[in-house]
Amino acid sequence: MMRTRPLKVALLGCGVVGSEVTRIMTTHTDDLTQRIGAPVELVGIAVRRPDRVREGVPAELITTDATALVKRDDVDVVVEVIGGIEPARSLITTAFEHGASVVSANKALLAQDGAALHAAAEQHGVDLYYEAAVAGAIPLVRPLRESLAGDKVNRVLGIVNGTTNFILDKMDSSGAGYSEALDEATALGYAEADPTADVEGFDAAAKAAILAGIAFHTRVRLDDVYREGMTEVTAADFASAKQMGCTIKLLAICERAADGRSVTARVHPAMIPLTHPLASVRGAYNAVFIEAEAAGQLMFYGPGAGGAPTASAVLGDIVAVCRNKVAEATGPGESAYTRLPVSTMGEVVTRYHISLDVADKPGVLAQVATVFAEHGVSIDTVRQQGKDGEASLVVVTHRAADAALSATVEALRKLDTVRGVASIMRVEGE
Amino acid sequence: MMRTRPLKVALLGCGVVGSEVTRIMTTHTDDLTQRIGAPVELVGIAVRRPDRVREGVPAELITTDATALVKRDDVDVVVEVIGGIEPARSLITTAFEHGASVVSANKALLAQDGAALHAAAEQHGVDLYYEAAVAGAIPLVRPLRESLAGDKVNRVLGIVNGTTNFILDKMDSSGAGYSEALDEATALGYAEADPTADVEGFDAAAKAAILAGIAFHTRVRLDDVYREGMTEVTAADFASAKQMGCTIKLLAICERAADGRSVTARVHPAMIPLTHPLASVRGAYNAVFIEAEAAGQLMFYGPGAGGAPTASAVLGDIVAVCRNKVAEATGPGESAYTRLPVSTMGEVVTRYHISLDVADKPGVLAQVATVFAEHGVSIDTVRQQGKDGEASLVVVTHRAADAALSATVEALRKLDTVRGVASIMRVEGE
Repeated sequence: MMRTRPLKVALLGCGVVGSEVTRIMTTHTDDLTQRIGAPVELVGIAVRRPDRVREGVPAELITTDATALVKRDDVDVVVEVIGGIEPARSLITTAFEHGASVVSANKALLAQDGAALHAAAEQHGVDLYYEAAVAGAIPLVRPLRESLAGDKVNRVLGIVNGTTNFILDKMDSSGAGYSEALDEATALGYAEADPTADVEGFDAAAKAAILAGIAFHTRVRLDDVYREGMTEVTAADFASAKQMGCTIKLLAICERAADGRSVTARVHPAMIPLTHPLASVRGAYNAVFIEAEAAGQLMFYGPGAGGAPTASAVLGDIVAVCRNKVAEATGPGESAYTRLPVSTMGEVVTRYHISLDVADKPGVLAQVATVFAEHGVSIDTVRQQGKDGEASLVVVTHRAADAALSATVEALRKLDTVRGVASIMRVEGE
Repeated sequence: MMRTRPLKVALLGCGVVGSEVTRIMTTHTDDLTQRIGAPVELVGIAVRRPDRVREGVPAELITTDATALVKRDDVDVVVEVIGGIEPARSLITTAFEHGASVVSANKALLAQDGAALHAAAEQHGVDLYYEAAVAGAIPLVRPLRESLAGDKVNRVLGIVNGTTNFILDKMDSSGAGYSEALDEATALGYAEADPTADVEGFDAAAKAAILAGIAFHTRVRLDDVYREGMTEVTAADFASAKQMGCTIKLLAICERAADGRSVTARVHPAMIPLTHPLASVRGAYNAVFIEAEAAGQLMFYGPGAGGAPTASAVLGDIVAVCRNKVAEATGPGESAYTRLPVSTMGEVVTRYHISLDVADKPGVLAQVATVFAEHGVSIDTVRQQGKDGEASLVVVTHRAADAALSATVEALRKLDTVRGVASIMRVEGE
């Protein structure tokens, strides 16, 4: 039953992920052949710097001409692990035009141009798979696209960036400040020299866009995702979180509105209860919590980055698209039929934890409470603490629209008796 | 692009899972149509008791003639949620013969006759999908068969039975004994009137056989799985576990031997460290921890049983096999090419926690230590406690073959100074 013509795979990029993909493809060839139902062969690896030493990578496969490689009509599958928008996008499009299916780990490209790429794949009757683009080795795209295909997903709540989780976990466990924790993450190789994409939430926002699109069967682009980084989280915020039985995580949150007629996607730091399964996700690990109508609450946990875990996800997709090639079929493509609009952050319903420095005199609480009432925001708990003529007031609200909550904070800032807003943090996962 | 002839689905069984499958298929028809790429229609529901009131189930679909239903040549997909070996096996086989793909939630049947059923499906060019057979709504079969298809799984460690996890969690948190915790589980509907299949580990053993087969690409039958129930776990065992920083879980453990030349599958209670992600799985939840060469450590968590969660998994499979029908293809079938033999429990490498009641006199520890040494079992820690002329000795071993460990325990029982073996428990997850 086994076909004998080998499936030919071309690899674009040979960094930490690409070299691990090469290692597995060249050392586990028999297993891959059995699992695909046909032999599989790596026929070329496009790199920018051909002279770099790459242990275990066959030198005869290396080329600098990526375009010529994806134009080869005998290539069945192109694996793109270059990252970034160009030349990745052009190379993938050219691969489609020449009949190749594509496996990509490129979250930025998929979050920005997923719709056009899916359309191009469908037009040419080939596959576009990208399990590795979200949370490394953790199966998420496939469970959402396939396992939950008969269910209705209402919420996705995830820790999808290992760098920021490492930093926040460090701040939580050691009481360190942000800079100190970032320095340790950099020293240990968890943070890049320029950590902007991670700490400002850009990386997580791209993943949120991809997850929201798959979960709700609609189109969500990177621009649709509200984004706040975690560089302003302080040791004092962690102390406040502890008093509430919470910790702080940078969360990617994708939600269907209560009326079912729109969706939202956002990335920001938030307090979550210590009893929530995401609270105990340590170090650079990732985890994604999914709430679906019939399935209930599911969680997927594992290493969200790194060469070997990402290569595992890429290889799973290579096996899948190769099987499809053997069967002369394609897997599920983009599913965006619900066309649900993406609402703005102001419409998101959430809770705020607000810490105010106030004058220590009678009537302050009444003034503050009036401001909340005027904005239609209901207060859950208030805690007052006096210290040398000054006092602090910690307010946790009930659920309200983010626009109303942020307008409340702006109004509080204008009160004479409010000396300053020490911290504002959303509360999620309850 | 949408085909117009509807895919026809026949349902066998209409208990808690079947009626939820019916509810979703009849109320979420438009979503299913969009996700499949063709309309889908429920054309018949075979039940034993047609007169039973089933809210929301269209009466005109009910039939008592299951055989006639699966013989209908216009049926594309048969969904089997009857359970048990017969008549499920004959009905599935007949469905294959008439060209239908099958979605089954039947762990007992798949663990016993999976190989023959997979062969029959392949012979007739149809699919056999069974995500719901293992751990309800938690995607496990698909991640193992597809997401990790390019990786090498070395270990699967899971809590795959909600009833026993509820009981053990209750014993842990309240100090209750087994009987008391079982009574509560029964009162709350988590345990059946006859809890044997759950508490004696039969249910978990069937799931272990299925998981081991998929994970290691070999055939593992129910008979190959070593099984110990959890009815003899005591409050004293939990107290010992706590002293070690552990809790006790009923685990399904599937492992590849260190030399890679055999596999094992087993179900038994075991101590696991509180720091292990499985330790915090509460109540009736299930979770499965997977260790793979490239992916590293992954965990999947969710509701392991119940009508709606199981229906979610069944529906995901219905969408998948319907898509395959539309594409005139089949998904991945059985993958048992490694033909790795299944070793016996004696060959499993594990650690023992042994609690002995001994005479409180000098030389006892030396005697006991000699017995361990004679069996080649190395001791990790020993704790001695005296109490009124008697003493207890708690020994935790290093890793050794289970046969050597159990022979050690037998030899200890024969020592004059050993009054009794108070408890023996394996230690896992380190």
